[in-house]
Amino acid sequence: MEVGFLGLGIMGKAMSLNLLRHGFKVTVWNRSPSKCDELVEYGASTAESPAAVVKKCKYTFAMLSNPVAALSVVFDKDGVLEQISDGKGYIDMSTVDADTSSKISEAISSKGGYFLEAPVSGSKKPAEDGQLVILAAGEKTLYDEVIPAFDVLGKKSFFLGQVGNGAKMKLVVNMIMGSMMNAFSEGLVLAERSGLEPGNLLDVLELGAIANPMFKLKGPSMIQSNYSPAFPLKHQQKDMRLALALADEHAVSMPVAAAANEAFKKARSVGLGDLDFSAVHEIFKVQEPPS
Amino acid sequence: MEVGFLGLGIMGKAMSLNLLRHGFKVTVWNRSPSKCDELVEYGASTAESPAAVVKKCKYTFAMLSNPVAALSVVFDKDGVLEQISDGKGYIDMSTVDADTSSKISEAISSKGGYFLEAPVSGSKKPAEDGQLVILAAGEKTLYDEVIPAFDVLGKKSFFLGQVGNGAKMKLVVNMIMGSMMNAFSEGLVLAERSGLEPGNLLDVLELGAIANPMFKLKGPSMIQSNYSPAFPLKHQQKDMRLALALADEHAVSMPVAAAANEAFKKARSVGLGDLDFSAVHEIFKVQEPPS
Amino acid sequence: MEVGFLGLGIMGKAMSLNLLRHGFKVTVWNRSPSKCDELVEYGASTAESPAAVVKKCKYTFAMLSNPVAALSVVFDKDGVLEQISDGKGYIDMSTVDADTSSKISEAISSKGGYFLEAPVSGSKKPAEDGQLVILAAGEKTLYDEVIPAFDVLGKKSFFLGQVGNGAKMKLVVNMIMGSMMNAFSEGLVLAERSGLEPGNLLDVLELGAIANPMFKLKGPSMIQSNYSPAFPLKHQQKDMRLALALADEHAVSMPVAAAANEAFKKARSVGLGDLDFSAVHEIFKVQEPPS
Amino acid sequence: MEVGFLGLGIMGKAMSLNLLRHGFKVTVWNRSPSKCDELVEYGASTAESPAAVVKKCKYTFAMLSNPVAALSVVFDKDGVLEQISDGKGYIDMSTVDADTSSKISEAISSKGGYFLEAPVSGSKKPAEDGQLVILAAGEKTLYDEVIPAFDVLGKKSFFLGQVGNGAKMKLVVNMIMGSMMNAFSEGLVLAERSGLEPGNLLDVLELGAIANPMFKLKGPSMIQSNYSPAFPLKHQQKDMRLALALADEHAVSMPVAAAANEAFKKARSVGLGDLDFSAVHEIFKVQEPPS
Repeated sequence: MEVGFLGLGIMGKAMSLNLLRHGFKVTVWNRSPSKCDELVEYGASTAESPAAVVKKCKYTFAMLSNPVAALSVVFDKDGVLEQISDGKGYIDMSTVDADTSSKISEAISSKGGYFLEAPVSGSKKPAEDGQLVILAAGEKTLYDEVIPAFDVLGKKSFFLGQVGNGAKMKLVVNMIMGSMMNAFSEGLVLAERSGLEPGNLLDVLELGAIANPMFKLKGPSMIQSNYSPAFPLKHQQKDMRLALALADEHAVSMPVAAAANEAFKKARSVGLGDLDFSAVHEIFKVQEPPS
Repeated sequence: MEVGFLGLGIMGKAMSLNLLRHGFKVTVWNRSPSKCDELVEYGASTAESPAAVVKKCKYTFAMLSNPVAALSVVFDKDGVLEQISDGKGYIDMSTVDADTSSKISEAISSKGGYFLEAPVSGSKKPAEDGQLVILAAGEKTLYDEVIPAFDVLGKKSFFLGQVGNGAKMKLVVNMIMGSMMNAFSEGLVLAERSGLEPGNLLDVLELGAIANPMFKLKGPSMIQSNYSPAFPLKHQQKDMRLALALADEHAVSMPVAAAANEAFKKARSVGLGDLDFSAVHEIFKVQEPPS
Repeated sequence: MEVGFLGLGIMGKAMSLNLLRHGFKVTVWNRSPSKCDELVEYGASTAESPAAVVKKCKYTFAMLSNPVAALSVVFDKDGVLEQISDGKGYIDMSTVDADTSSKISEAISSKGGYFLEAPVSGSKKPAEDGQLVILAAGEKTLYDEVIPAFDVLGKKSFFLGQVGNGAKMKLVVNMIMGSMMNAFSEGLVLAERSGLEPGNLLDVLELGAIANPMFKLKGPSMIQSNYSPAFPLKHQQKDMRLALALADEHAVSMPVAAAANEAFKKARSVGLGDLDFSAVHEIFKVQEPPS
Repeated sequence: MEVGFLGLGIMGKAMSLNLLRHGFKVTVWNRSPSKCDELVEYGASTAESPAAVVKKCKYTFAMLSNPVAALSVVFDKDGVLEQISDGKGYIDMSTVDADTSSKISEAISSKGGYFLEAPVSGSKKPAEDGQLVILAAGEKTLYDEVIPAFDVLGKKSFFLGQVGNGAKMKLVVNMIMGSMMNAFSEGLVLAERSGLEPGNLLDVLELGAIANPMFKLKGPSMIQSNYSPAFPLKHQQKDMRLALALADEHAVSMPVAAAANEAFKKARSVGLGDLDFSAVHEIFKVQEPPS
């Protein structure tokens, strides 16, 4: 199977390598061409532009760093649009907002091409190990055709329906995660203030029905007030806000998510926005002996 | 090691059997004596009253169904108090409130006895398999002495400090659990209303950082509006209330738990109190096309 | 009309004086007898104990500073209980909790006496001006009989039904007030942060549908971060907590009151409990440029 | 003073009449010309288009029903823009969003004209009585020049700074109002469920520190579950949402407003969006005996 791949950042490079290792013929392109070299060593071909990649390959994957880059490779000169045509498929695995996704989808379709948005859950390590979770939405036929590639890139892929649903699914998951992080923080502070060892709480949680990787990973550093940013609090709060906006559209009342969102805003208001989202823990702490 | 055991309900019977199987000499008592018979087949002795058990054994465990029963075996005629004395230990593994625990603790201590409260997390199956989680608090010396028994009864035991801390730890855990259940319910409703398959949400959650046994167990039945009571909603709400009261005492602000508590109250107000606590899901559903 | 009056603090003294000025014959008693002197100048008689007052008068009013004092004048030696009897009425206008009120009510009734709880809204100035609002509950017959006295003491009296209802009404009113204070504080902070003059907000509010004396009185000092305690924040938060507990009993979900309660708790947690309840304003302020 | 007036709906007609009665020379225009007739009887002149009005008058006021109409009279053929020029002023008193206001403001300024947004608080009756509250923002010079007109139209006008501030002020006020309505509804339900007469609660509130016209006006109909729409719930909820979005921009945490917003959303979700915003009362009611 011959595929194109646009974007060789940390994620894209790891993903292209996995495709090569599993026997795919891969034609790569990256804005800075030097990043293509290592892939060539592993057997990749290169092309001089997104348009050239699409001209050569039936299926082209993209993994760009942000919405601006995602739009640029499609709409700019020598971009995807110039060569996309009947029967060709374009699969954008970047994490972008619904509007960006829709614009790309409409442009591709208007030229007769097929489109999938396919944002992933998982970062560098799962990308290298082919253990991503892929949230695809758009053209079902295209999804079925590229399953062999998704099987190499991820441990699991989902087809979620129309374009936009991939982004929505990420919002819903992140919203639940944000509320859980608040509940967890409240629990840690309550434990400590009422004379329990927070470390014991972590151990008890780990053995029960609500044990989960996030509590296990973040708990110990939260106890030490260590909030090195893995997922910045301001981004978590933005996702809470977008999930609440989605809920507003559909008249879904979400009082717990709303309370969690306000707590994240409080954290932003005291300058914690660039720390890890677990830093919301700080705002629940009791600063003075209560009167 | 020779131990006494008071209370042979579902939990107590399974626990006594485990002790017998692991070589403990066990003297049992139950309010309805017939329940002792099966244990006798497995090698247990019997005694005619709590007092008689305590007279015979250095360590006596109890697993009663509620605070009234827990107080009764201690304070009534022929109760524990009549025979507890210097060097004897009493370990109450029932789930009771802090007041009940304190009363028993003070009475035992005033006679020179040692006391542990040791509520457990886990129900019938973990009790049979010796896989309970034991939250002990009270006399550290006694805790150290009965560790061999705890090792048989549970997969893990904790010593949490002074009497009352076992109950507090359960409250903190249940509070986090209650907030999580609300966040999960909100997410399920938002997913469905915004055009996603709730079943896909469960699958995506299961593969990510917040995967946990509760979501996995409850999710599928919640999607089918099936809320057979494992942990009744009114009890979950009571625990939220008590956790919030504990937080009030220590001036800990817990906006997410407070929002979750009001949602559970709303569920009670529409008659869902006797269903499983996951029935809070119902109150987030959208009943009419929004205007 | 001849009445007794127990308790001559700031409130009780002003109230007794009003009764005297309007032609009532008043027999007063106070724990420190010196406070009776001024009343005597205005025509009051004195008696040496609560019992002596009740023996002499058909109707005895009380205005004590707290529940301990309220219980003491009834149950202690030479207390009200010793002389209360068929046909005599006891009207306690102190602000006490429902339990205290119930205890006194039962004791009075068991001797054949009639009882009213009648807490008031309003402090020194309204007491002096006979402009209190009286929230009476208990024996309706007694209420009807003492209306002439209530007409002198207050601008309006209510009969609210069974004993306890006076206290409940105060809780409901204070709960609404506490939520309003939070809404007002949020609005002041939002105005300021988004480039509006908080003073203009006060002026606009004053001219509209939600204009109220509290916004008018507290607004200007809140803008200057001046929170001299008129009603201490910790007492407001206690009332929110009690109102939420009452709501819990009746399965009433109150998400806004719950959020306001957590905000007041947050204020306590940073040491603002002894300031005026308007100090909750402080916790909404933004301390750092948000990232 | 000669002024133009665009838009003769319920509000615009009443406002033009007031100007005429106080000696202003008024040139009116309305999309359906028939509405101009009555004004002509009172001495108004007419013009055939917004452009013609502006050509004739130094100052032109507008009171249109919605953003679409507000944009149309400015940008369409024969619109305001065609004749606005150096030294002329345009005062838009319609209630529109910030974006609409900004577009109009920029267009007017680019032609050398002066602009004020001046949304009002108050509906038909205050418009007729010249008792509106005017929230003006934009060009201070223009504000100063048209004060004589504002004095006729309103009981009070404010100059709030840059364009957009009028709309923001309305949002802040409506947000406080929405939270208050929730607090009030919770109180009414709590009163009733705990054995108090809601009517007594209204009377007590009316006599105290939080008495306000809204409680007085809405309370009696809310008790009768009468929610004829004066201000539709869905519009109130939209304003809460916009106020929360404004707060998000400035990192202001508003947990009480957020809880109130979710309650309004809940009300929308059960089909109450087209009723009066006081219909949020319905969602706090207890439907079943709690278990």
